[in-house]
Amino acid sequence: MIKCWLTCMKCAQTQPMGLVSRCACGGLLMVEYDLELVKRTLTKEALTDRISSMWRYIELLPVQRADAVVSLGEGWTPLIRLDRAEAQLPLKRLYVKREEQNPTGSFKSRGFSSAVSLLHERGMTKAAVPSNGNAASALAAYCARAGMEAYVFVPKDCPELIIQECLHYGAQLYLVDGFIHDAGRIVEEGKVTEGWFNTGTMREPGRVEGKKTMGLELAEQLDWQLPDVIVYPTGGGSGIIGLWKAFHELKALGWVQGELPRLVSVQEAGCQPVVDSVQGFGAGGSSSDTLPTGLRVPEPPDCGLIADLLKQTKGTAVAVTQTEILKAQQSLGEQGISASPEGAATWAGLMRLCEEGWIGAEDSVVLFNTSHALKYDFLLPKLTVPVVRTYADVVQWKGK
Amino acid sequence: MIKCWLTCMKCAQTQPMGLVSRCACGGLLMVEYDLELVKRTLTKEALTDRISSMWRYIELLPVQRADAVVSLGEGWTPLIRLDRAEAQLPLKRLYVKREEQNPTGSFKSRGFSSAVSLLHERGMTKAAVPSNGNAASALAAYCARAGMEAYVFVPKDCPELIIQECLHYGAQLYLVDGFIHDAGRIVEEGKVTEGWFNTGTMREPGRVEGKKTMGLELAEQLDWQLPDVIVYPTGGGSGIIGLWKAFHELKALGWVQGELPRLVSVQEAGCQPVVDSVQGFGAGGSSSDTLPTGLRVPEPPDCGLIADLLKQTKGTAVAVTQTEILKAQQSLGEQGISASPEGAATWAGLMRLCEEGWIGAEDSVVLFNTSHALKYDFLLPKLTVPVVRTYADVVQWKGK
Repeated sequence: MIKCWLTCMKCAQTQPMGLVSRCACGGLLMVEYDLELVKRTLTKEALTDRISSMWRYIELLPVQRADAVVSLGEGWTPLIRLDRAEAQLPLKRLYVKREEQNPTGSFKSRGFSSAVSLLHERGMTKAAVPSNGNAASALAAYCARAGMEAYVFVPKDCPELIIQECLHYGAQLYLVDGFIHDAGRIVEEGKVTEGWFNTGTMREPGRVEGKKTMGLELAEQLDWQLPDVIVYPTGGGSGIIGLWKAFHELKALGWVQGELPRLVSVQEAGCQPVVDSVQGFGAGGSSSDTLPTGLRVPEPPDCGLIADLLKQTKGTAVAVTQTEILKAQQSLGEQGISASPEGAATWAGLMRLCEEGWIGAEDSVVLFNTSHALKYDFLLPKLTVPVVRTYADVVQWKGK
Repeated sequence: MIKCWLTCMKCAQTQPMGLVSRCACGGLLMVEYDLELVKRTLTKEALTDRISSMWRYIELLPVQRADAVVSLGEGWTPLIRLDRAEAQLPLKRLYVKREEQNPTGSFKSRGFSSAVSLLHERGMTKAAVPSNGNAASALAAYCARAGMEAYVFVPKDCPELIIQECLHYGAQLYLVDGFIHDAGRIVEEGKVTEGWFNTGTMREPGRVEGKKTMGLELAEQLDWQLPDVIVYPTGGGSGIIGLWKAFHELKALGWVQGELPRLVSVQEAGCQPVVDSVQGFGAGGSSSDTLPTGLRVPEPPDCGLIADLLKQTKGTAVAVTQTEILKAQQSLGEQGISASPEGAATWAGLMRLCEEGWIGAEDSVVLFNTSHALKYDFLLPKLTVPVVRTYADVVQWKGK
């Protein structure tokens, strides 16, 4: 009984399931499932009794044995409606999916729960990743949970708290004098000697499958009515690919109908390869003053594919400035939501697209907040706070 | 149709539902529900279709109108089984409830979702709280969500990140030169002039009701089989009171049977009023070198009541040292779990009680991890991390 296999996105050739990501033709390999088999046990009915984590969709995840699953309580994150903003803009509906409520404080928990499960299932003991931070801490946590060793390589200006987090989970951490692709080269150079499995973006099929569950959940939480627009922060791009894949599988299962949501990638101006690719310019490169966030991926491995998927859904890509990102972070804070710069970028992108009329009053929109504001505490404004001993001190301070 | 009212824990007198917490006799007022009315709509069956937040139990929460609910996606947090530790100790079962996955990164989200909903329902616009940190940021977030003003008072050594978090949500923050009860005095002094509603521990009935949902969820997640022991970090004590209340309501509904779990309060040695009270000593006071965490509450308002509830369940209270707490934090990190000092204290308490034989191989145990390690980043060990450019640098560093 074969549950899943790999299919090339470029030449459509198939091969048995394994921890590879590139077809002989150079195309990206993705997991495909026997959907007739899936349907036998995974039903809308069955979901009412399933665990409140991304593993509720286990038939659509590439592990073969349930006891190989490495879980810390990832997924099934809240979807919050922003009523006040919705009325002001106006939009038909506006939601934010709170991915910062994952076990490692970011959406990266999903990909690594899935990828580390695949490694664990095959008896591997050492994993490595080049990362801007949140992928590193997620690999660290899931390896700790599985009793495996994690080797993580992050740019040297990676947020201090994320470095602390990786160390807290017991990872071997290296700061790299360069960008994420420089970190990636180190992992590739050392992997044979060291016995590291490289879990970098698009290096194995597990991470995309884990991220795919964001799309499955979104559909289920919206009672199988997909939104008109999804605004998503894009670095390496596996999140967007995962969402696209989720909706295609749900269509094939007959669980959702009609047009796919228009997928929008948001990037930071100055490091915008996907935006450039959508606009038909040569992609790549990063100016040196972009923020040290998950958005800073100057050379995503499948940039052309991402641009194609966006176009296929009638979506687009937007570059927003640092100023817009920081202002957006504050706007979300004032609504009670702690948003990372990447998550806040989706709000900034939404503002831009509403102004341009690309998103309008007839649209239902979902933003993805991929991590907590606090992990990037150095970006938050430093305000003066009073020290008081009595209420009289409070009165005096207010009088100033 | 009266859904709920207030009953005094001391003299059993009742009064209509309202935002008060003290009976004329000085006893603590708690919300009581018309359970016959509750049963008509809240059934185990009905729960399969409910929202994945603490508001799935809306019949057992004191709001009168569903549209008054102020929610950010709190509750229904994961319950993780620690299989490896369970086998090593050994225990029958060992779980950790991951309260750090709440919207504000701590269990305090629950109490303030409930309390702010009650204030919002009554048209109030200004709330204040004395807090060690996480209650302050939770009040700040929920007030932001509701369009209300938050005034928060925390000790001046409150963790920097939590201060940042409060400011991010737009709260008016004051650092107090003193302990949480000194902060409490300021709120009491100013509340009439300023029009603040004091949402401090046991000042209104909403927070305990929100925290109660931890117990309801735990029972539901364990398929209505309560564990033998619950280890819980205790500061102000409303968490323990909430758990106790949850189990009593579930028993009255006929949803759980048998003995209640033995409730264990864990405190930090040097600030251990509940431990002292359980042991029959005079309670109160804090040595000046205790950690600036939620555990540092030298004068909890209902210390005697908490001690009585622990004894009633055949539970106990344990004081653990800073060294034990920091070691426990590391142990949980090595299992992939980011635990605050308060959450880690439950692991330290578990170790102690296993050594003493108070907890044994026949017990199923649940720990509550109330917040993230990262909010207390200053407590994490500072390790030296290498900066590299190539794999050769990695090899060289390892050779050192």
